[in-house]
Amino acid sequence: MARHIGKQSMEFGKNISIKATASTVGTKEGEGPLREYFDVVLQDNLLGQESWEKAESKIASDNIKLAINKANLSPQEIDYIVTGDLLNQCCGSTFGVRGLKIPFFGVFGACSTMGEAMSLCAILVESGGAGNTVAGASSHFCSAEKQFRFPMDLGTQRTPTATWTVTGDGAAVIAEGSEHPFIRGITTGKIVDMGIKDANNMGAAMAPAAADAIYAHLQDFGRTPDYYDYIVTGDLGYVGKELLLKLLKEKGYDISKNHIDCGIEIFDKDLQDTHSGGSGCACSAVTFAGMLYYKLRRKMINKILFVPTGALMSPTSIQQGESIAGIAHCVDIENEGVSV
Amino acid sequence: MARHIGKQSMEFGKNISIKATASTVGTKEGEGPLREYFDVVLQDNLLGQESWEKAESKIASDNIKLAINKANLSPQEIDYIVTGDLLNQCCGSTFGVRGLKIPFFGVFGACSTMGEAMSLCAILVESGGAGNTVAGASSHFCSAEKQFRFPMDLGTQRTPTATWTVTGDGAAVIAEGSEHPFIRGITTGKIVDMGIKDANNMGAAMAPAAADAIYAHLQDFGRTPDYYDYIVTGDLGYVGKELLLKLLKEKGYDISKNHIDCGIEIFDKDLQDTHSGGSGCACSAVTFAGMLYYKLRRKMINKILFVPTGALMSPTSIQQGESIAGIAHCVDIENEGVSV
Repeated sequence: MARHIGKQSMEFGKNISIKATASTVGTKEGEGPLREYFDVVLQDNLLGQESWEKAESKIASDNIKLAINKANLSPQEIDYIVTGDLLNQCCGSTFGVRGLKIPFFGVFGACSTMGEAMSLCAILVESGGAGNTVAGASSHFCSAEKQFRFPMDLGTQRTPTATWTVTGDGAAVIAEGSEHPFIRGITTGKIVDMGIKDANNMGAAMAPAAADAIYAHLQDFGRTPDYYDYIVTGDLGYVGKELLLKLLKEKGYDISKNHIDCGIEIFDKDLQDTHSGGSGCACSAVTFAGMLYYKLRRKMINKILFVPTGALMSPTSIQQGESIAGIAHCVDIENEGVSV
Repeated sequence: MARHIGKQSMEFGKNISIKATASTVGTKEGEGPLREYFDVVLQDNLLGQESWEKAESKIASDNIKLAINKANLSPQEIDYIVTGDLLNQCCGSTFGVRGLKIPFFGVFGACSTMGEAMSLCAILVESGGAGNTVAGASSHFCSAEKQFRFPMDLGTQRTPTATWTVTGDGAAVIAEGSEHPFIRGITTGKIVDMGIKDANNMGAAMAPAAADAIYAHLQDFGRTPDYYDYIVTGDLGYVGKELLLKLLKEKGYDISKNHIDCGIEIFDKDLQDTHSGGSGCACSAVTFAGMLYYKLRRKMINKILFVPTGALMSPTSIQQGESIAGIAHCVDIENEGVSV
C-alpha cells in the first residue's frame, strides 16, 4: 500500500522494479557524449519512412518492443502501456503503440512525459491490478521544429537560449520484483507559470516548475539534496540550470554539487553547438533509459531523483497570447528496495 | 488491493466513491433533452473571453472548482487532478487547471478522456497514495471545428455522418468512501484501427474499439449485457451505434436492449439537427456528470458500464495519410460497494 506523504508526494509500499529499459536515438545524439549507453543509434533519422512524424512513431514502436524484449517478455505479457509525445493529439504515441495490442493510457506532459508515465506505471503496479507495465516517451527534432517553430527548409537561425529537440524514444518496463533499481516514491508537479512567452527559451519557462517540484519533494520526504547521488532534471539546458540553482538556493537548498541536466549531458557543448542544450520528451527518457539506468544497475550510483521537466506550450496556446506553463514530476529511484 | 482480471481488466478492492460531479455545457446543449441535469448552462459560449480556446479553459477551470465545491472540499484538499481535452498539446486542460495549484497528470484519450481520467483516479485512490482526486474532460464546438475541420466562418456544410462537438466540461471527485456510486472495475482499451480516414465519420472509426473493449469487459468479468442497467458509449452517434450493435452481435452479445450513447442522448434528433449526434471529450463527461450521476445517486439505475469512446485523430496524423485509430475505456460503476 502506498502512503501519501507531505503535501504532494507518495511513497510506495512494494518493490517496484525497473526491470529493463531501451533507448533509441538519432544520428546527432549518437555522436554525443552518451552514445555508448544507447541501445540503438539510427543511421537515418527518417528510418525509411515518408515523413518525420511516421519516423517518430516507428522509433517509438521499435524501441518499446526492444524494452519488452530486454525484460524477457512478450507484448502479450504487458498489462498496460503509458506513453506520450509532443505531436498534436499525441499521434506519435498513438501510431507507435497501435500495432502492439496492449491496453493503453495516453499521457501529455510535454517534456515531463517520461516522469508522468513512470509515475503512473508505478501507481498501476502498486494498486495490485497490474503486472508488467511499460512507460515511454518519444520526440523527433524535425517533427518538433516543424510543429512548434519553423519549417525545416527555412533554415532559420536559432537563438542562444534555444535547445535542440532530441530524436529518439526511451522506454522502461516496470513491475513488482526484486531487481534493482526501484521506484520508491514520486512527487507530482503542479503547473507553474511565470509568464515566459518565448518558445525559444523553454529552460526559463520550466526552471520554476522544477524548483517547485524538487523543493516539495525534499520537504515532503524530509531530505537534503545530498541524499541523492544525482538530482537529474530533464531538459533545462544551460539557461534553465542556472535559474534552477538560483531559485532553490533562495529557498534554502544548494543542489549545485549533485545536479545534472539531461539536456546538458546529451550533447557536447563545444563540438555539437546546440546552444542551450537538448530538449524534448526523449531527452530525459533516453538519458534515463541509457546512461542513468546503466549506472544504477552497476551500482555506480545508487539514488537519483529523476525530474523530467515540461514546457506545456502549444502553437494553439501561443496564438491565444498565452504564456508557456511549466511542470515537472519527481521520481525517486533507488537501488535499495523496501523491506517487505 | 486491486485484482487483475482476465486479459485486460482490473477489479478494485476498496470502495472508490464518486463523491460529487459537476457539469457545465454550452447554449445548444442547454436546449437539448438533458438540460435539466446540468449544473450550469452558459448563456454565452465565449464566456466573456477573447477566443474559443480561452473560453474552453475557463469552462474547465470553473467546472472543476464547482465539482470540488459540491464535494464540500477545497482545492487544497485535492491530491491529484487528471484531465484532458482535444486541443493541440491539451492546452485547454493546461490553462484550465493552471490556477488550481493541484498536482496534475495530463492525459490524452481524445473523446475517451473521461474514461481514462476516471480509471486513473480510481487506480490512484486504490494504490493508497491518494486521498481526494478529480477526473475531468472538456471540449468546445468552436475550438474543435476550427482545429480538426474547417474555420467557423466558412459555414461549411456538414455531412450526414458528422457529429456535433459538445461544448462543456464534466468533472468528478473520486475518493475512498461510503457514498454510492462506486467505481468497481475497469477494462482499459487497446487501440483498434480499421482504416477509416474520414474525419466526418468518427462513429465508424470508434465503434470497433468500443466493441473490442465491451467484449473484453464482459469476457473478463464473466458477465452478460443484462448485468448492467445501461451500457453507455461516449459519442458513437447514430452511425456508430448501429455498427457497434452489429459487431457485438457477431461476437455473441446482444446489447440492443440496454445500450445508450451519450452522443445520441444529448441532442434532440429532430429539433436540433446535429446529423449523427454529439461528440467530443465533454459529450460523455457531461452526460455522466449530469444525467447518469443523477440517476445513480437516486437509485433510478444501479449499474452502468460507462464506455467513453475516442477517435485518436489529429490534423497532423491525417496529413501523414494515417487512418483514424479508435480507443474506448470501460468503467464499471455500481451503487453497491465492496464488502470490506
